[in-house]
Amino acid sequence: MEKVNIGTNIYPPMLVTLLGVNVEKRANFMALGWISRLNANPPLLGASINKFHYTSQGIRENKTFSINIPSKDMMKETDYCGLVSGREYDKSCLFKVFYGELETAPMIEECPLSIECKLVGIHEMSTNDLIIGEIMGAYTEHQYLSDDKPDIRKIDPLFLTMPDNNYWTVGENVGKAWKAGRDLKSERDGSEYIE
Amino acid sequence: MEKVNIGTNIYPPMLVTLLGVNVEKRANFMALGWISRLNANPPLLGASINKFHYTSQGIRENKTFSINIPSKDMMKETDYCGLVSGREYDKSCLFKVFYGELETAPMIEECPLSIECKLVGIHEMSTNDLIIGEIMGAYTEHQYLSDDKPDIRKIDPLFLTMPDNNYWTVGENVGKAWKAGRDLKSERDGSEYIE
Repeated sequence: MEKVNIGTNIYPPMLVTLLGVNVEKRANFMALGWISRLNANPPLLGASINKFHYTSQGIRENKTFSINIPSKDMMKETDYCGLVSGREYDKSCLFKVFYGELETAPMIEECPLSIECKLVGIHEMSTNDLIIGEIMGAYTEHQYLSDDKPDIRKIDPLFLTMPDNNYWTVGENVGKAWKAGRDLKSERDGSEYIE
Repeated sequence: MEKVNIGTNIYPPMLVTLLGVNVEKRANFMALGWISRLNANPPLLGASINKFHYTSQGIRENKTFSINIPSKDMMKETDYCGLVSGREYDKSCLFKVFYGELETAPMIEECPLSIECKLVGIHEMSTNDLIIGEIMGAYTEHQYLSDDKPDIRKIDPLFLTMPDNNYWTVGENVGKAWKAGRDLKSERDGSEYIE
């Protein structure tokens, strides 16, 4: 196998989300793929956004934000939120907006899963700010749960690849995490796994 | 639609990766879903790891690390890397290891895509450290590219959902980012989109 170095313009495949903030008391949403859980306890979530986004203003105003996971049926609206700025376009009327305990983090009723966060810090870099929020609640509907847990097949989210700029759905369930490797562990241990 | 608050134990679906470091000159790999691009220019990538992972030692030793994207065919080995610690198990012999320009960031030959990073900072939190790396190169093979760009269908990565702990493949291509919302923009602008 010959490896080729394809440079530094590299983006791991990412979940597509809509980040919600209030700016001057109006809800605004931006499309965002650069998010990750950051800390186990307390539960922290990070979202990296270009410093010049209108969203930055809202983050600093209210110190709250939301991360909403749209389903693939919402691809057009989601993509639209990535095409236009809240400075020029009112995106608050695209969705039914609701608020949770934080009261200033707008969430999207049509999204199968919405997470509300309280800002706990901002890590500034050259072009982007990593906003760090503590997860204060997560809102969904019974129809998106299996065994009381979010079910990705029911949520039906989008993934994004760059720089080819394609949206993808989730595929098949192929195994269980923290289980799929147990046989290999037993093999290497020379023993059988005892549950 | 009635929303229910399912609490704070929430994990957005994530890409499955293997983080590589050298610890005392031996390659070690941990399974990791908490990664994200963080900055556009320079290209920064973040990975959040529990402070007590063996990996932390290697990060501080060499100030380099790699993010490798395994294909679904590597699910067992990948899951195994999340089951055992490099403190007790030698994981260097699980894969064919190669090095790039940084010389100390071990990468996995079997992985369709490997990214090598130079550590530029660590953002410490209570249970986790966010290690921030500048992408110095990305290694793949021609068989995983289409139009000189990584092709997710060829890479065939895994996604992880928690707390149900399931691995998933990628599904169908359903649209183009920064295009799928153009009709909606035209509609709202009352004009046609001109490319």
